[in-house]
Formats: sequence, structure tokens, C-alpha cells
Amino acid sequence: MLKVSGIAASAGIAIARAFILEHPNYAVERRAVGDVEAEIARLDAALAESQTELETIKEKTLRELGEKKAEIFASHLLILNDPELIDPVKAKIKDEQLNADYALNEVATQFISMFENMKSAYLQERASDMRDVTKRVLNHLLGVHFVSPAEIAEETIVLAEDLTPSDTAQLNREFVKGFATNIGGRTSHSAIMARSLEIPAVVGTKNILSQAKSGDLIIVDGLDGHVFVNPSEEIVAEYRAKQAAYDKQREEWRKLRGEATVSVDGVHVELAANIGTPNDVTGVLDNGGEGVGLYRTEFLYMGRDKLPSEEVQYTAYKTVLEKMEGKPVVVRTLDIGGDKELPYLELPKEMNPFLGFRAIRLCLDRQDIFRTQLRALLRASVHGNLRIMFPMIATLNEFREAKAVLMEEKEKLKAEGVTVSEDIQLGIMVEIPSTAVLADQFAKEVDFFSIGTNDLIQYTMAADRMNERVSYLYQPYNPSILRLVKMVIDAAHREGRWAGMCGEMAGDATAIPLLLGLGLDEFSMSATSILPARSQISKLSRADMEKLAAKALDMQTAEQVVELVKSIEG
Amino acid sequence: MLKVSGIAASAGIAIARAFILEHPNYAVERRAVGDVEAEIARLDAALAESQTELETIKEKTLRELGEKKAEIFASHLLILNDPELIDPVKAKIKDEQLNADYALNEVATQFISMFENMKSAYLQERASDMRDVTKRVLNHLLGVHFVSPAEIAEETIVLAEDLTPSDTAQLNREFVKGFATNIGGRTSHSAIMARSLEIPAVVGTKNILSQAKSGDLIIVDGLDGHVFVNPSEEIVAEYRAKQAAYDKQREEWRKLRGEATVSVDGVHVELAANIGTPNDVTGVLDNGGEGVGLYRTEFLYMGRDKLPSEEVQYTAYKTVLEKMEGKPVVVRTLDIGGDKELPYLELPKEMNPFLGFRAIRLCLDRQDIFRTQLRALLRASVHGNLRIMFPMIATLNEFREAKAVLMEEKEKLKAEGVTVSEDIQLGIMVEIPSTAVLADQFAKEVDFFSIGTNDLIQYTMAADRMNERVSYLYQPYNPSILRLVKMVIDAAHREGRWAGMCGEMAGDATAIPLLLGLGLDEFSMSATSILPARSQISKLSRADMEKLAAKALDMQTAEQVVELVKSIEG
Repeated sequence: MLKVSGIAASAGIAIARAFILEHPNYAVERRAVGDVEAEIARLDAALAESQTELETIKEKTLRELGEKKAEIFASHLLILNDPELIDPVKAKIKDEQLNADYALNEVATQFISMFENMKSAYLQERASDMRDVTKRVLNHLLGVHFVSPAEIAEETIVLAEDLTPSDTAQLNREFVKGFATNIGGRTSHSAIMARSLEIPAVVGTKNILSQAKSGDLIIVDGLDGHVFVNPSEEIVAEYRAKQAAYDKQREEWRKLRGEATVSVDGVHVELAANIGTPNDVTGVLDNGGEGVGLYRTEFLYMGRDKLPSEEVQYTAYKTVLEKMEGKPVVVRTLDIGGDKELPYLELPKEMNPFLGFRAIRLCLDRQDIFRTQLRALLRASVHGNLRIMFPMIATLNEFREAKAVLMEEKEKLKAEGVTVSEDIQLGIMVEIPSTAVLADQFAKEVDFFSIGTNDLIQYTMAADRMNERVSYLYQPYNPSILRLVKMVIDAAHREGRWAGMCGEMAGDATAIPLLLGLGLDEFSMSATSILPARSQISKLSRADMEKLAAKALDMQTAEQVVELVKSIEG
Repeated sequence: MLKVSGIAASAGIAIARAFILEHPNYAVERRAVGDVEAEIARLDAALAESQTELETIKEKTLRELGEKKAEIFASHLLILNDPELIDPVKAKIKDEQLNADYALNEVATQFISMFENMKSAYLQERASDMRDVTKRVLNHLLGVHFVSPAEIAEETIVLAEDLTPSDTAQLNREFVKGFATNIGGRTSHSAIMARSLEIPAVVGTKNILSQAKSGDLIIVDGLDGHVFVNPSEEIVAEYRAKQAAYDKQREEWRKLRGEATVSVDGVHVELAANIGTPNDVTGVLDNGGEGVGLYRTEFLYMGRDKLPSEEVQYTAYKTVLEKMEGKPVVVRTLDIGGDKELPYLELPKEMNPFLGFRAIRLCLDRQDIFRTQLRALLRASVHGNLRIMFPMIATLNEFREAKAVLMEEKEKLKAEGVTVSEDIQLGIMVEIPSTAVLADQFAKEVDFFSIGTNDLIQYTMAADRMNERVSYLYQPYNPSILRLVKMVIDAAHREGRWAGMCGEMAGDATAIPLLLGLGLDEFSMSATSILPARSQISKLSRADMEKLAAKALDMQTAEQVVELVKSIEG
């Protein structure tokens, strides 16, 4: 028996036989070719086959996992058709009379190493996408066939170096009970996919592939991040019990689906979900979400070659509002820029994109884009309970300007005879320190706050949350962050407004007791976190948590705060 | 008569005849050369001549303006000797049999346009440096001679498209009474040089060159940012009076040199200066500085090819401490990274350098660098009144760690028999929002705070201060900034510590009444701002300013705060 540890990437226990998923090791050789035209035709054929394959996977993903997950294959298709990649490959074939596989591998490797050297999580993902596409085309060029994950037809646990996005999309949920990989972290593609598929997973084990072979009995413990290879019967029995206990807990969580979220002492808070596309609404309702606390509209703008029309947007917003059947839906207006680029907007490169021209800053400048979105939202408002939220508000003047634009579009629509809801709440993201510090002034003019902790933490600590060298400063439990959260909540309550949170902190089991104690009204999180959070809150007393929060606010370090919260669990 | 407006870059009034400084327009032609070796020799000769010239200018600048200003020519020398520039030029000459001037111009233009496209102030400066060096070498290659600013020998006002760093360094202070340029902003090289030379200047006029010719009578109004071409006698008379009034005001300021800084109601505050090199101390004493509030030690590390030794550093710190004769000197430990790079450290490229691995974050990781600096400081401590300050502190743990390293080095030195002062105050920069919000906890462990407003504002507003597209968010008077400043000052006073400020805000006439009212103890600014600030404070009542500050803290926007401060001036 052997035990390997890694990063718990998706909760649950899985016990089954190993299936080793290994991509072939290509021996790409440099060969001189005589007929370069024929070689280019061979490349074109491989590109066309890859295109067909990708489109099929994209459709399957869209159907089964929703638009957001399918985006990745839209990106792959863009890479496959990118003249910046393909033209140099063809030029290499032609000018240097080289074989297509060698030329492709050379050019792609250059791009990949360039991206990887950029030390940005965003570009590293681009590198991984390009690696995935290159492999696919090489498969066709070299006539290599490997057992694709789509062909798995018995209960297995997949072990791999890493799972590419295409691999994960092809996993058959019926047979793949869990997986473990050598590389990756909690936010790598494979980890995110595992959570949304609800498959237990451990990533970043470093060496699981060299420790197990096909057919070995494997336990994946996605709760604590362990993988067992050929465990003893006692261990298997122990883990069957752990699995049963976890399944039972999940069953209990399922029972809370239709319930309200109420603390031991009777305080009701709202648990909502963050979504990216209309397809995500199914998951929200399945998990008993009481609303959508953050609809990220960026995905409507991504993976396409021009801005989405008013009609396309209207349809998306209307669909979400209708599916939510009168439950509140907070739509955040376009938050593009920073690490999220839109190639067709041709924004200038910035030295510090996280401190740059993005979100509301861009929308107030490019009002054509902003007004189209606001019109689509206003038109959709009659189909449900719409709340509109502006991102990256740093000053009251920005909020006033954005509100004025909204009001103008509303008047225009009414003049055109279009019906618009008169009950649209208008709020802001609080993700910039200045806005948290001045929340009392903002509370006089907005209907609600939603605290975006991902950005608020990175700005308050002045540490890029994607930069590994300063990741130790991403401290949700730092007393300074808790104090800012308190300022926002207190300011809202003094003016009779509500305060929510839509950053990752809202669904975090360590943060929830503190946030309840600070008086947060709405918690918006990934759909799959809602039921565990509801269960947790139903066992807490708000009065006790108020005392806990007061102590935390007076502490010196994040570590002390974590200790404090742990002490109540003991 | 004609009046052109621009940006007031350096205070004062100058009236004299125009000297048009125009760099020749090179007609660089593409020619085939037969003897490529001779052509490369021709290039080498031009490089050698440029090298001699640059070394002369560098020496002159070092003598007359100090080390910091001379840095720019050290950079030029590095570019001139950079194989990444020169090798491709030689390859072009050899491989394509082209003339040296054409090859140089081609390669340099490529680099320049690459840098310019980066949209970063730092790289745009590199572009301007490279343009400057290229011109210099082309002058030699083409045998072009132009009247250099060094040759000006009668009272003139220099008009130019822009002044390159070499131009400004060659200006003869005796004859050049002022200048005006088409391009540039308050922080461009030429503007900074003008202020340190105390020459009135207006930059960014867009079209002064096309509006005036050599010999025209010119008035440069560096107070309000106007330039007059051939003004009427009335205007000349008016401006002679304005000039006299300004000169008189300066005279009055000069009288305050040896005075303390005391408000109308008898509150004493300390006015200190920000310096970059030991040479700057002369300016501090000339302007009546009561101490050094910020000694930026980065310049010791820049413009060289390896880390400065303990000995080199010891000498610099000792010199400053001795020259300041017992007045306090706050030395900030190395704040490198972000936009300040050290080529020899080979730091990884970061996506958001301002939110990255810099200052204390880097020093705690690269303790070899940190310990060398601390040893040099500790050894120098016996030569004056040393205070040590850590930059970019975001958490108490960082401060504790840095302090522990300092204490270790102190113990080691004492064990080696070296005398170390026992009265070194130990403080931190407050430039990260988390630290301002948690200042009460920090105040229990530090001896003093110095608020670094440049960074504090950019993080609090989440807006890169070098990025023009979000420059409207660089708001020193935003009530959120004033509230953070208040938190820091109040926290210090509750624990019996002092609070200073070393960002640009400390020397700003609009901010000074507010800062006095908030209770700031020490204001550290450019040496040339000290006397005007002393004069301003001596006319203000601290009790009144406290009321003013209280009102400002309760306002909604920066614009309202500015209005409020203006109202007291009325």
C-alpha cells in the first residue's frame, strides 16, 4: 500500500480501479520535404480534422456543462484558426522545406515558452491551451491514436500527469468516479471542472503516475487530499465508512434545498449564487439558491469576434430572470480589462492592468458599449426581479455618472414606448478600498452594496492575487479586511440598505461565522457551496458570532483570526 | 503679441529673447556599402566619440547637479554599450551590406517603437533615452553639427520641441533664464530638471515652436503656465512687476531658513526633505530643512552592474548623517521592484509590478541584500541621528520579521566589537491600505509612521499613477484618503508615537492646511518646497485647521474638499 498526498481539489471519496491516461510522447523529427505544397495540404487536412473534433467537443460541453465551460473550446478554435500561429508554420514549411509536424511543433513551442515566461496565471493558461491544441493537431499529423477519456466504459479513477480541458470535457461522468493528477492547483482547469462535475479529485500529487499502474485499486480522498494505491482492507473499510458519512452529509444538505437560511437564534440571511451564463441557473436552483448575487456578464463578450448586440444580451438577461422566477438577480455590468481582455476592443497594453482602465472606467469612456448593455438590461427588467450593479466604483462621481447614463437610457426607452420595471435596485461592487472607507457617503445614494473580496483584498494588501511570489499576502482574514467589511455593512444598515458579498470569501467556511457576526445580509457563492453554508449557518448563533467578530476586529494578524474561528469549532 | 498656454513646470517669471533649440532633421539614406569592415569601423568610431562626449557630460552633471541627475547619462552609456542594440546594427551592416547610419536608425527605431507601444511611463522614458543616444551617434556618423545648448552665451529663453536630458544638463544656468517646450508634463525629465535648477519653465504648450522665432521677446510665466511672444509694453511691465513680487516672496521665504515651523497658535511641526543621494543634502540645508524625512536608498543600487557593497553604502549613509549634523535622517531600506528594476537582480517579469514582489517583500526573501544594507546602516548610526524605515509593510508579521533581522545584525555587529547607536528609531512607511486601517495595532510596535501618499493613493483608489487613462483617480483630496491619513495620525498619537508624511502631498499647498488640521507631526517634501510651506504654515491656525479637516472628512468628493480649502484662502 502506498499513500500520496496532494491538493484536495473537489470534495468526496472515490474508490475504484486506476485508469492511466497518458498522452503519447511524440517523436517529432525534422525532415526535409520535396513537395512543400503537399506538406501544407497535409497540415490543412490535420487542422480541418482537429476543427471538426473540437466543434463536436464544444457542442457536447455546451449541452452538458453550459456555456462557460464550453468557452475553453471556443478559445481552442480561435487558436486553431489564428494566423499568428498558422502563418509562421506554413512559412517554415515553405521557406525551410520542412515537415509540417516539425514546423508546427517548433513554432508552437516558441509561443508556449514565451507565454510561460510571462509569469502571469492568465498567460500560463494560454500556454496550456496552445499545448492542448498543438497535441491535437500532431495526433492527426502523426496518425497517433490514444485511448481517449471518452472511451472509458467501466468504473475507474483516472490518473494523469494533468488533465487538459479537452480530457476533462470528455470524461464520462457515469464511469469516472474520481481522478488524481501530478500537477495543478485548486484553481487549475481540471480542479474547477471536477468541482462542477462533483467528481472527487486530488491534484498536484507530484508523482501519482509513477506510483500506480493501470488496474491498481485506488482511493481518492478529495476531502483531505490523499490518494491510496492498493490500500489494505482496513483502509478500504475505513474509507467506505468515510464515504458513507460524506454521502449522508450530502443527503442532509440536499434536504435544505427548499429551506430558508436561518441561524440558531432566528436571524435570516440570503444565500445566493454567482453565475456566468444562463445555463448556470439550473445549478443555482438545484442547490437551493435564493437568488443570483452576481451574474458576471463578461462571458457574453468573450470568445467572439465583436461586441454582443443588444438583442443577444436581452435574450440572455431575460432567460436568467425568467428561470429565477421572481427571485432577485444581481447583474454586474461589464467588468472587462485587467486580466480579462477582449481582442476586438484593442485596448492598449498597460503596465499594471489590475490598476488600470477597466470595468466602469472603460464603460464611462466607451459609452456605446455601456448604453447597449443598459438598454438590454432595462428591456429585460420586466421579466423578473432585476438588480443592477456597477463594478470597480472608486468615487461617488463615477457612481453618479453611471447612474445618469442608466436614467437617460431608461427615459429614452420609455419615450420609445418600451415598458421598463420601476423597481430596479441599483447598487455597486465594493472592491476598491476608497469605496469601503467612504461607504457611509455611498450608502446615501445606492440601494445596496456587494463586497467583491477578491479585488478588495488584492488592493487593500497591494498584492496581485495571481502572483505566486506575493500570494502570502492574499489574506481574507486579515483584521484590516474585516474592518473594511464592517465599515461597509454598518454604513448600509445605518441608511436602511442591504450589504452582500460576492467574492470567494462569502462561501468560505472559516469566513462565514465572522461574516454572520458582522451582520452581512446576503452571501453569494458558487452554487455547490450553498447547501454546506446553509447547514453551517443553521448551527450558529448570530449573537455569539457578533462577539466573535468583535474579538477578530481587534486582533493583529490573520493567523490569530483563524485560530479564533477554529476555537469555536473545537 | 501672442499668448500660448501650457503646464506650469517650474515656478518663477523669466523675460528674455528666444533661442530656438532645434535638433537637425537627419536625412538618413539607405546606401549599399562595398567594404563592410570599413563601415563597421566608422560605426565604432562614432560610438567611441559619443562615449567620450557622454562621459564628459556625465562628469559635469555629477559635479553641478549631483548623482541622481547624472544617472541618466549612466543609462545612456549603458545603451551605447548594449550588445542588444549594437550587435543587430553590425549584423545589418554586414549581412545586408548597408551603411551604418541607416542600419543604426532602423534598429533603434524598432526598439523605440516597441518601447513606446508598451504604454508604460517607464518604457516610454527608455524610448526617449534611446532616441537621445541614437541622435548623438548619428550626429557623429553624419558629421552634423548643431548649436548645442552648452554654447549659449547671452541671456535667453530656450524654446524647443522637447529638451532631452543631455540638452538640459548642458544648459548654462547663467544665461538660460527660462524655457518652454511643445511637449512634456509636470513629471517629464525637463520639468524635473527645471525645478532643481530653479529655472522658470512651461512645458506641453503644443505649438510654441511654430509661434516664435529666434530673437523674439518672450515671457515665460512658470507660475500660471503661460508663454508670451513679443508681448506689448504693458504686458512686459505687468510681468516685470509679477516677477519682482515673486522675487520678493522668495526673499521672504529665504528669511525663514533658520526658523522653526510654527503655526499662528504656536504649534510646531517639522519640515524635512526627501533626498536620493548624499549630494542632495546641500539643498536640504540651503532650504532650511529640519531633517531628512526620506532618504531613498534605491539610487545606490541603480545605474551599476552589481549590488553595492556594505562599504559603499556605509560611506553614503555616514556622509548624509554627518552633513545633517545631528538632525534626524530617516533612511528607507531598499524599495526596488515595481517600476524600479535592477537589471543585475534578474527579477521575473510580473503582470502587475505595482502589486508585486518589491521592497520589503523582496528584502525578506533576499536577506543577503537586506542584511548588507542593515549592517551598513547600523555601522553608520554612530555618526548622527539615524531612523530606519521599512517600505511596503502590509502586515504586522512583515514588520516583526524585518525587525528581527535588524536585531540579529545588530547583535552580530556588537559581538564583532562594532559600536552601534542604541537610539535608532524604527518605523514603517504607511503606503498600503491594510496598514493604514490597522494602524492602531502597528502603533504598539513601531516608533513612527511615515505616510507614503504616492502609493497609498494608487492602492486606495486602485489606479496606477503612471497610467494616463486612470489619472483622474489619483485624488489626494478624496475624503477616503484623508480618513486613512487621520487613522494613521490618531493611532500614532494614542501610543505616543509621531506620524509624518513623505509623499508628494506633504508639500502640496492645498493639502498642507488639511494635514496640519489632522495633526501631522512631520512633513517631508522636495527641498525647494520647504520654505514656501513654512511660510504658509506660519499664517495658519492649527485650531482652525482642525475644524476645516473635520469638515473635509465628512465630504463626499475630492472636488468638494478642494472647494473647501479654497474658501479659506479667499
